[in-house]
This record gives sequence, structure tokens and C-alpha cells, in this order.
Amino acid sequence: MANILDTGVKLVKNVGRYNIGAGSLAELRGLLDGRRALAKAQGQGGAVVFLVDEFFARQRDVAARLGVTDDDVLQFVHTAHEPKTEGIDALVASLLDRGLSQPAAVVGMGGGITMDTAKAVSNLLGNGGQAADYQGWDLLKHPGVFKVGIPTVSGTGAEATRTCVMTNEATGLKLGMNSDYTVFDHVIMDPQLTATVPRNQYFYTGMDAYIHCIESLAGSYRNAIGDAYSRETINLCRQVFGQGDMMAPENRERLMVASYLGGCAIATSYVGLVHPLSAGLSVVLGLHHCVANCIVMRAMGDFYPQAYDEFWGMVDAQGVEIPKGVCAGLDAAGFEALYKASIVHAKPLTNALGEDFKARLTPEKVADLFRLM
Amino acid sequence: MANILDTGVKLVKNVGRYNIGAGSLAELRGLLDGRRALAKAQGQGGAVVFLVDEFFARQRDVAARLGVTDDDVLQFVHTAHEPKTEGIDALVASLLDRGLSQPAAVVGMGGGITMDTAKAVSNLLGNGGQAADYQGWDLLKHPGVFKVGIPTVSGTGAEATRTCVMTNEATGLKLGMNSDYTVFDHVIMDPQLTATVPRNQYFYTGMDAYIHCIESLAGSYRNAIGDAYSRETINLCRQVFGQGDMMAPENRERLMVASYLGGCAIATSYVGLVHPLSAGLSVVLGLHHCVANCIVMRAMGDFYPQAYDEFWGMVDAQGVEIPKGVCAGLDAAGFEALYKASIVHAKPLTNALGEDFKARLTPEKVADLFRLM
Repeated sequence: MANILDTGVKLVKNVGRYNIGAGSLAELRGLLDGRRALAKAQGQGGAVVFLVDEFFARQRDVAARLGVTDDDVLQFVHTAHEPKTEGIDALVASLLDRGLSQPAAVVGMGGGITMDTAKAVSNLLGNGGQAADYQGWDLLKHPGVFKVGIPTVSGTGAEATRTCVMTNEATGLKLGMNSDYTVFDHVIMDPQLTATVPRNQYFYTGMDAYIHCIESLAGSYRNAIGDAYSRETINLCRQVFGQGDMMAPENRERLMVASYLGGCAIATSYVGLVHPLSAGLSVVLGLHHCVANCIVMRAMGDFYPQAYDEFWGMVDAQGVEIPKGVCAGLDAAGFEALYKASIVHAKPLTNALGEDFKARLTPEKVADLFRLM
Repeated sequence: MANILDTGVKLVKNVGRYNIGAGSLAELRGLLDGRRALAKAQGQGGAVVFLVDEFFARQRDVAARLGVTDDDVLQFVHTAHEPKTEGIDALVASLLDRGLSQPAAVVGMGGGITMDTAKAVSNLLGNGGQAADYQGWDLLKHPGVFKVGIPTVSGTGAEATRTCVMTNEATGLKLGMNSDYTVFDHVIMDPQLTATVPRNQYFYTGMDAYIHCIESLAGSYRNAIGDAYSRETINLCRQVFGQGDMMAPENRERLMVASYLGGCAIATSYVGLVHPLSAGLSVVLGLHHCVANCIVMRAMGDFYPQAYDEFWGMVDAQGVEIPKGVCAGLDAAGFEALYKASIVHAKPLTNALGEDFKARLTPEKVADLFRLM
């Protein structure tokens, strides 16, 4: 076991409470009523900040379904790009401008982008300063505003994790606020909310859970609880993507559970080779995390042969499309940038390949892998 | 699906935080230092109440290992009998006599009996009144004292559940304080602590997790997250008890995880036929819960044939002894008492056998089952 990987006792913060089941979104209003009453009893306004994936702006009844009042803020979150520290700061500034320094709750309803945005906003309202101040590990000093996560696409595990990934464009740093304070106080898992996800996106995002767990179980850093969460996450993904319609109601519920348990697995495990290469694609080509993972799987036949076969079998079974040839137009500088953006992730690469991972992942070898994508 | 079983949206409270890993007991002192400081900042004394399985009274350094100070209370908990409401009340009264109405924390270190005692004491300190006042569902109105669970034998899942089972001898009622407030704020899972458990007891207690989960997965009431926790719990039990030494260090860690995940499974699932019959043995013959479950398995060949074979295979593989003939000396009144104490558990029996479970479980049939034990 390599020294740079934590080998000691683990400390894990769980999501406070969760609702699960079709129709559980209806529980939100009562939950928020309680938080509003509590805030008012403490002399605050009782307003709630709703950050919702822009997809739902098309649904005319969304404000009514969520119980949005005139005092609340309902802000739709753009998902064309993953969160940036600047964008988080601007969002927080706009809330402060409206006098919402201490809302009763922050609700994040959407995929990983939206949930991570809600986590970051909650943290900044509780801690002051700017988003970039807290990129790293355990830099937050105070709890954020009470926050509720409502996933509407399953797989990233953002509903269960202690991070919220953001890119600081000024420095190029893509790093989250890793903190127990980042964990949601309440999560609502309503599989009805994933019925409208486009099929390709549903697959890419679901595979984030699967891929994380196959990386963890193949790594050198292992422990009993991480393994347990990973195994069951993979088991659920096999049920969902193996045969039958991955988007049937029972499979949407299973994938919601897989995403949550996959998020729990992240707390005590490391990823492997896929995520660093995927990060390279995100940084250099701007590809979103989940589709980038799937693209990387094109080059994983030698590294994760069993998972490679299973993954491409699931792609076939579900008839989804994985982009191809994404590095075709790159020059030498492009491949160098990909190498640098990937090789920097020493911990997962050590977990996957050992301490001398650079001997196996030479710039030439890495370029060859990217050419396969 | 039967009407008396909850079929709607589930709400689950998680354990706040957990430590896991060999040696994690050493984290307790720092955790309590934080709670002591917080209590003192709030004008309280900062004392901690340690409730510890009497087994550890033999270990001379236990107070030092736990960081017990002169102001603290270290009380060893007798485990000859399962918790009674009277005993809980007496324990709370003795704490109040010492001026400990608001300790900084309550620590329960032991098996299900000790952890349930700690949960109940914490709840009563936070809510006043007597233990019997809160036997039922959601009767507690306030949070208890910050409480830490430290399992020293694995299987009951008490470290993860929202109940603490107690018997009220005056009324004969065996029922817990089922409440979100009963859930531990912090759990420390240190597999070194289970190294000294007697082999039979280790097996009986571990099987509580296995049996709960095989009952749940065979029931009519199912849901995706309960199933996921149950499947992985069973998977871990197979690793632990299937072959090799069930008490090897890696298996003790696995069983600690199985117990925790089995406890998580309880939150959204029902047991089946084993637990009602086991409750009959506990009420009428005074047998402890975990050994009673194993005894009931003698009669489960027709009801859970696959689990029956697997269970007795694990008994053989580990060379443990399950008591036999426990009902041999009973008269008709004894069998009638067993029937009554079992058949009252309508929800799990409905889950296992359907709404007309009494047609299948006639008094004669139930007596025949107990004769097999």
C-alpha cells in the first residue's frame, strides 16, 4: 500500500436525513415549513433559496410544486458549463444584495452541477469570503445554511459526498470545498424526477457511479466499508444497465440508490485511472465529467479488462452513443496538456498503478491512450 | 402488498458521523474533548457518562483508554438480562442525583444491550419523564444528550437504528423508543474491540444481521434501498461465516460493516417469520434475542429453505453450537403463551406470509414449530 494514500482510521459524515420513494418530492414543502418557522423564531426572514436545473424552467408548475413563496428566490442554474468559483461568488453576491444572508434553507435540485452549486452557496453564506478561499480540505470553519439536495439525474453521488467541485478559471484549479460542512442536511430521492433525462445523459451520469466503484475495487487501497458500498453500487448498475429498459421506473429507483451508495463509497475510497484521464479531457477539451469518463473507457481494455467488457456490453444493451475521436484534432501541445492535466492526480494513479505510475504512464503512452478515445 | 405495511415515502435519519478502522477507539478522546469544551462554553460541567459492557470491567486500563476523568461517570452495564424500563429509570435517577442532568455526552460501549441503554438514557435526559412514557413511535419531543455508540460485538445493528428495545415488566410490553432522536450522533467502529467475544456469542449476534436481511428480501414489502443494504449485508456475512475463521481480523471488520449496514436496512424494511417466533422465545423463556433467532432457524426449513441450508452450513463451517430442545419441558399453557407472544407481531408476519397469516400459523402449527427448536 502506497504511503501517499491514507491508511488510517476514517471519519465519515453522513447525510443527515433522506427521503426515498416515488413522489417523495412532495415532502419538501413540509420540511421547508419547519425550517421557515425555525428561522422566523430566530428573528430571520424565513425565505428559501431554490437553485434548480434550468431544464425545469420549462415546467410551468415548478414553483408551485416546490412551494416557492414571494419572499423566496428561485434561480435556475445553467448546466452548459460545470461550476466556476466566479459564478458561485456572483450568485452569493446577488443573494446578499437581496438581503438573504441567512435564508432558512438552500435547496439544490438538479444534477451534480446544480447540487454542487447549492452546497457551495450554502457554505459561503455560512462562512463569508469567496469560493476560491475554500478550495481544498477542511478549510470551512462554520456550518453552512441548512441545505437540501434533490437529485434529478443519478450517478455523480453529489447528493452524498463532502465536496462540491468548482473550477477557478484564474488559477486553473479544479477542486472542491472538501469538508464535513459540505454534506447535505437532507436529501430527497424521488425517482419520478429522472423520467425526463435524455437517454445518453442518463447513461453517462449513471456510469459515474459504476466507474468510480470499479476503480476503487481494483485499487490497492481498500477497506471493508468502501468495498461494501462499491460492490452494491456495481450490483445495482448491473441490474439497471444489463438488460431491459434502464429507464423503467424500478430501474430509475435502483439507479438513484446506486448513486447515493456510490457517493457513500467515495468517502472511504479512491478512484483509479479513469478519473485522472477524464479530468484531462475536462480541463483541456471542456468535456463534462460523466461523458468524459465514458470516453476514457475506450482506452481501458488493458487496465480494467473485465469492466471494459461489461461497460461496452451495457452500452450495446442500452443502445446509447459514446462520443469518439475527441482527440483527433489535437497537436503535440494538446497532448502535452492532456498529459499534464492527468498525471497531476497522484493519489488515484498510485491507487491504480502503484507509486511508480509515471514509469507506466509515459507521455507517449498517455498520448496513445487519448488517441484511442 | 398488504395494507398494514407502510408503502409510501420513507424518511430515514442517518447516524451523524462514524469512524471505522482498527484502532479507531483512540479517536474517542478527541471527540469527547470537543463536546466537553462545547458544554463548558454553554455553562455546563463538561462531564461524560460512560455506559460500558461489564465485560470491560476486567480490563484495568479501560478508564484510561476511554479518557474517563474524575468528573465523569463510568458505569458498567450488566448484560445478563436485556434492558428493562425500570433499570433505565434507575440509571437516569442516579445520574440526576449526581447533578448530571446535562452531561456533555453519553457513551455506550458494548453490544445491543449496552448501546440501547445509552440511547434510552440520552433520550430521557433530554426529555424528562420515565422510559415507559416513550415506548412507541415518535413520542420523544426533544433531542437527547449527544450520544456515541461503540459496538463491541457485531450484528444487532443497534449502532445504526432509531430504536432502543426495552421491556416494561409491569405491562409486559417489549418495545423501543422509535424516534429519529434515538439515532446515535457518532459511532466508532473499531474491529479490535470484537477480538475477545466468545465464539458462540460472536456467531449468534452476527446472525442477527444475516437473519434480518434474509427475512426482508423474502418478504412482500420491498424497496430499492432496503434491498441494497440487505443484499450487501448478506454478502458480507457469507464472506465472514462461509469459510475460514469468522474471527480473523479482516472478518471482524467485515462483520462490523455488515452490522452497520444491516442496521441501515432495518430503517426501510420489515423482518419476517423468524423475529416474531424469536420474540416468543424471549418473552416466554427469557432467551436473549440473538441466540433465540438462531434457535428459531431450526424450524425454518419450510419457510426459508435456501437460507436454512446456508445457515446450518455456516454453523457447521464455524463449529458453533446452537441450543436445542429449549421447549421440551413446556406444557400446553407454555405453548399457548409462545403462540400469543409470537402471533401479535402482525406486520412482520404479514410481510412474510400475507394478510391471512393466522390461517397458516394456527396454534397447533406454531406449537409444532416450537417443538422443532
